[in-house]
Amino acid sequence: MNSVSGGKVVVLTGGVGGAKLVLGLAQILPPEQIVAIVNTGDDFRHLGLWISPDLDTLLYTLSGKANATQGWGREGETWQFMSALRSLGGEGWFQLGDGDLALHVLRTAALAQGETLSTITQRFGADWNVGVRMLPMSDDPVATHLTTDEGDLPFQRYFVERRCVPRVSSIRFEGAERARAAPGVAQALRDTGTRAILIAPSNPYLSVDPILAIPEIRQALREASAPIVAISPIVGGKAVKGPTAKLMEELGIEVSPAAVAAHYGELLDGMIFDRRDPVGESTLPRLSIDTLMVTLEDRVRVASAALQLADRLAE
Amino acid sequence: MNSVSGGKVVVLTGGVGGAKLVLGLAQILPPEQIVAIVNTGDDFRHLGLWISPDLDTLLYTLSGKANATQGWGREGETWQFMSALRSLGGEGWFQLGDGDLALHVLRTAALAQGETLSTITQRFGADWNVGVRMLPMSDDPVATHLTTDEGDLPFQRYFVERRCVPRVSSIRFEGAERARAAPGVAQALRDTGTRAILIAPSNPYLSVDPILAIPEIRQALREASAPIVAISPIVGGKAVKGPTAKLMEELGIEVSPAAVAAHYGELLDGMIFDRRDPVGESTLPRLSIDTLMVTLEDRVRVASAALQLADRLAE
Repeated sequence: MNSVSGGKVVVLTGGVGGAKLVLGLAQILPPEQIVAIVNTGDDFRHLGLWISPDLDTLLYTLSGKANATQGWGREGETWQFMSALRSLGGEGWFQLGDGDLALHVLRTAALAQGETLSTITQRFGADWNVGVRMLPMSDDPVATHLTTDEGDLPFQRYFVERRCVPRVSSIRFEGAERARAAPGVAQALRDTGTRAILIAPSNPYLSVDPILAIPEIRQALREASAPIVAISPIVGGKAVKGPTAKLMEELGIEVSPAAVAAHYGELLDGMIFDRRDPVGESTLPRLSIDTLMVTLEDRVRVASAALQLADRLAE
Repeated sequence: MNSVSGGKVVVLTGGVGGAKLVLGLAQILPPEQIVAIVNTGDDFRHLGLWISPDLDTLLYTLSGKANATQGWGREGETWQFMSALRSLGGEGWFQLGDGDLALHVLRTAALAQGETLSTITQRFGADWNVGVRMLPMSDDPVATHLTTDEGDLPFQRYFVERRCVPRVSSIRFEGAERARAAPGVAQALRDTGTRAILIAPSNPYLSVDPILAIPEIRQALREASAPIVAISPIVGGKAVKGPTAKLMEELGIEVSPAAVAAHYGELLDGMIFDRRDPVGESTLPRLSIDTLMVTLEDRVRVASAALQLADRLAE
């Protein structure tokens, strides 16, 4: 592998954690050198609207509109829609902010007119001056479902409505085997000019696996010349946010970065561990750093370490 | 004709003016004795959402949520959606308030699942404790179009986007000839227990004519035993609101209550004139009163006069 200075950095990413990493990268690289390949397994139709939570989180984060405290949605969001909706007996379990609705309504209308999720996402990014190239993993529908002790649950029912309480025994990605990678995705991964492929510290099982479940993407990763480096979503034996650790326990997997590395298997060339975690028996090239991303400086530090490891692997 | 005390009062109504009349009626009659048959010729799909402006105006007015100053939409409405929509290049000519969106999103989702506009409207009314029975004129789509000096314009493009500026040469109601009356409409008109049928002071050409253009409704009105009384939308030779007077001039019609009465023709049994207007050569039974509806007392006065004339005609 050869280091491609000035080459593109491609990130496979899910929601909040991944968006933080991409934001860190955008501080140290020209945004147009960054390509984010975003999970759409969480996407779903709700009240007739097509909702793409991970794409929106990235869009809000990179355009400076994200609600930092809450971890999702827009800063300064208002809730008149939800209030009226509830007074009319509408389903209230999924929060739709007033400003946030604009994305969903415009996306739904554009999809109904035959536009693809890719071109809609590109347009939203341009409208909000996001320089990073944001690509949905696929323009075809892929839907994450969980088999739980409460039966089969679509992702948002599990994640939002049931707040990850049900015990999970297996996860599947409906439509993934038939889905094509969105335009630009396989090319970005395969491109010999690509400097690094990063796997964001998103939930491996719920946010990254849907991306890897698309055959064309899996194949492109296998054939990629750029080093592939994951950032551990496990910090000090716990998940920073969300159900990663709980899920790993339920699936009988040790809650450790090494177990995540083992999950990604031969795909990985290296991994960023948090220094609180044991390295275990893993012989995978790694850097151990503080991976907690609280401040913007933290995001830059983690992004830099990932690039540093990738560049070292490419030498 | 016989006066049916305690019988139902049926109102054919469009937007703001009609809603004022119905609100006045609801002060002097038990709401469950009132049936409003509402124009849906203004309905349209916008950004994928199905919008029924006259139904919503009535719903907001009767549930105490209407913005009295503005004449449309909700009191205390916020506009975060429109602001985000514009920042994403979305069509900004039609104002959709944050709370208002709940009606449109829920209605669109319910229609997509095969529910009828009638049952959706009934549900919204029940959720907001509206006692008046609100019936769309039809569950089938009817679309008002205007032939103008700027070409063919769907109603909302003419009314909202072009602010009634184009000169109108003719008006048509697409789908009206094939549309069936919504469940309950023809029965309410024909019912021998009906005390009066009122035509609200809505725009005769844009708000009432679409209702009359539905064959089943026209026929039911001809066969109705209850007296039919219109309230003049012309006050002192002018329209209180909206393009009625401008439209009458463009269509070569004298701007007078008598001309409106002539337009409704044999359908009418009586009419409420404003006392500022000349009676002309009309021999139609009438009452001349102050028809301006500014306060709630005004609305009660006009509603009472219409009932008084109807009851006199039924004696």
